Amino acid sequence: MNRRSFLAAGIATGFVGHAAADEPAPRLTRAEIPTPGLIVDLDRFEANLRTMADHCRRAGCGFRPHAKTHKCPEIARRQVASGALGVCVATVPEAEAMVAGGIRGVLLTSPVADRGKAERVAALARTEGQVMAALDSTRGADLLDAAARAISVRLDVLVDLDVGSRRTGITPGPPAVELAQHVTRYRNLRFRGLQGYAGHASHTTGFAERSRVSRESMARAVETKDLLTRAGIEVAILSGGSTGTYNIDPTIAGVTELQVGSYIFMDVEYRRIGGQSGAVYTDFQPSLMVVTTVVSATHADRVTVDAGTKAFATDVPDRPEAVGRPGVTYQRAGDEFGILRVTGDATLPRLGERIEFLVPHCDPTVNLYDRIYAVRGERVEAIWPVAARRETTR
Amino acid sequence: MNRRSFLAAGIATGFVGHAAADEPAPRLTRAEIPTPGLIVDLDRFEANLRTMADHCRRAGCGFRPHAKTHKCPEIARRQVASGALGVCVATVPEAEAMVAGGIRGVLLTSPVADRGKAERVAALARTEGQVMAALDSTRGADLLDAAARAISVRLDVLVDLDVGSRRTGITPGPPAVELAQHVTRYRNLRFRGLQGYAGHASHTTGFAERSRVSRESMARAVETKDLLTRAGIEVAILSGGSTGTYNIDPTIAGVTELQVGSYIFMDVEYRRIGGQSGAVYTDFQPSLMVVTTVVSATHADRVTVDAGTKAFATDVPDRPEAVGRPGVTYQRAGDEFGILRVTGDATLPRLGERIEFLVPHCDPTVNLYDRIYAVRGERVEAIWPVAARRETTR
Repeated sequence: MNRRSFLAAGIATGFVGHAAADEPAPRLTRAEIPTPGLIVDLDRFEANLRTMADHCRRAGCGFRPHAKTHKCPEIARRQVASGALGVCVATVPEAEAMVAGGIRGVLLTSPVADRGKAERVAALARTEGQVMAALDSTRGADLLDAAARAISVRLDVLVDLDVGSRRTGITPGPPAVELAQHVTRYRNLRFRGLQGYAGHASHTTGFAERSRVSRESMARAVETKDLLTRAGIEVAILSGGSTGTYNIDPTIAGVTELQVGSYIFMDVEYRRIGGQSGAVYTDFQPSLMVVTTVVSATHADRVTVDAGTKAFATDVPDRPEAVGRPGVTYQRAGDEFGILRVTGDATLPRLGERIEFLVPHCDPTVNLYDRIYAVRGERVEAIWPVAARRETTR
Repeated sequence: MNRRSFLAAGIATGFVGHAAADEPAPRLTRAEIPTPGLIVDLDRFEANLRTMADHCRRAGCGFRPHAKTHKCPEIARRQVASGALGVCVATVPEAEAMVAGGIRGVLLTSPVADRGKAERVAALARTEGQVMAALDSTRGADLLDAAARAISVRLDVLVDLDVGSRRTGITPGPPAVELAQHVTRYRNLRFRGLQGYAGHASHTTGFAERSRVSRESMARAVETKDLLTRAGIEVAILSGGSTGTYNIDPTIAGVTELQVGSYIFMDVEYRRIGGQSGAVYTDFQPSLMVVTTVVSATHADRVTVDAGTKAFATDVPDRPEAVGRPGVTYQRAGDEFGILRVTGDATLPRLGERIEFLVPHCDPTVNLYDRIYAVRGERVEAIWPVAARRETTR
């Protein structure tokens, strides 16, 4: 049995995604991963897990990492093992995949506004402590309460605040207090606290300015928390923050947990927001890469790799960065191709050569892949299914 | 059993994707499709199939539609039933999925440059007439020949020409002739002809200019074909063209078949290239839509739908267009959300309302979904798996 057929047999027998420490690792080397392929460097990934966990422990702040970044129960399990309270999810299928993967403490951060989704959320609440849902309207509360009542469960909910993104969430202050008071009157909902996600703060360039924007945003959430507490409503949770503000938000009194997502992988976009010292954000190490092959080399000024807009998400202006190949630039050229050119003294890669790239934006790039190859040096230690990429787990 | 659990049972028992005329249809209405969901309007889709097939028959030109657009064997089968010669594919996993789905005449239009991929292509050639592969280098020919020889098959190949895209393909004229002559000397390859894909022509705005660019590009392919014929090498196939040039390329003597892709779905980008008469390209009907739900409505000037950059591909500047809602504009707001605003007299959609959108670019948008809901009016007739979205079928 050669290496590829061994791997294929592993996939067929369900080996993929169940590579625990005691199981045999796939006999595949980094150089044999089919391209375009998504790779996580385990040494860097594990260092990122530790950095965040250590930081939150020292800061006395909880963290419930956002699984929208990876959609992968294998990764969620490692985050929980590092000390996380559970995971956040952005969609109901993500919640279902995480629960199916054995994760507890799943917070759905997006509001639902239809009966079908509300029923699916309620179904996940059959086990106590398994799921919480954010809501920002009485209609959302009505739907969740009805779905929970129909199957006799009680669903934990947070009120989602608009702290400046103007995307979801109710206005902080009196409108939010009124909604929270309303929520406490439903028999099958249990009000647990508030969510304030300052998406506009997370990617603000420069630490000082990012700190100012995040403090200003979260102050509105803290004020709402205080109003509720004075009204006699316990706010057990105030969830907010991001990888960009992980060292800002825990210093804001009242914030109880962080929704950090990208810290495990990093990406070109996040690296350029800058850190506390320096123009590159180096608190976390770039661990996520796409490996490609040069498949065409018929011109003197360029070669073509097998990775285009179906291999790298295109939602941000940043381009993929060739790892260890300074002077090599990438330009997308359709769904399946990218064109590499060189500047300065750099030499063009050769036909058949494999080139790895940091990705422009991690979350939507992972969403393009079925599996993540977890590598340590030249060895592939495991293949993790991006299970929640599927629209439903049922 | 309610409608959703009936559907779930269907999925579990393999019903999904095998909805033939004689099988029961899923008891799901258009209004019950989970959002964001990908919808194809069957009446329009079938009209597009007929329009292309009728046109090619009248023009005396073959067509081998590009399955990179849909990655869906169910759709490929319908294209073949309409008269197509087979399908084109852009990746080896697509080729494997199409062959597994019973499609013959699969043309891999991208060059391969590593041994693993070459072996997978050769494996598909075990059945005569099942697969052809384009190549643009002697290295590619070496790899394919070695892989074919190892399992004692003969692989049909085309030489890929760079007719102006500068992305893949060898230079037409003498370099291409030399490569084709070289290919004829391999024992396990069979030279079948040429491929010339003028990607830069397909989206040229305005029929006259598009016609000029495509004729200029394809002339270089026809010239190469003539040189080979004069050298005593039979060129059975000259494959080129696109949905944008389907009524241009068949009139170019020497072109034998078209690689049309988007015609089945259409998208916002293609509609604005203009037709033979008029600024909107209306030869084919927009059949592909994403259905969304308004999940947040906490501001007077906007509402938020549950479809962002993981629901609509972002590789082109065009935005999703709300169907039947003039004056409603979409702006993406992160991975899972889009913000709707209104202009003029239009009114904002309400919380919980479902809004369907035409997609900016069909191919990479389909790639974001696991399944396509095939609808006729309010009825969901079938659910088609986007099978080749997986990285491998093994």
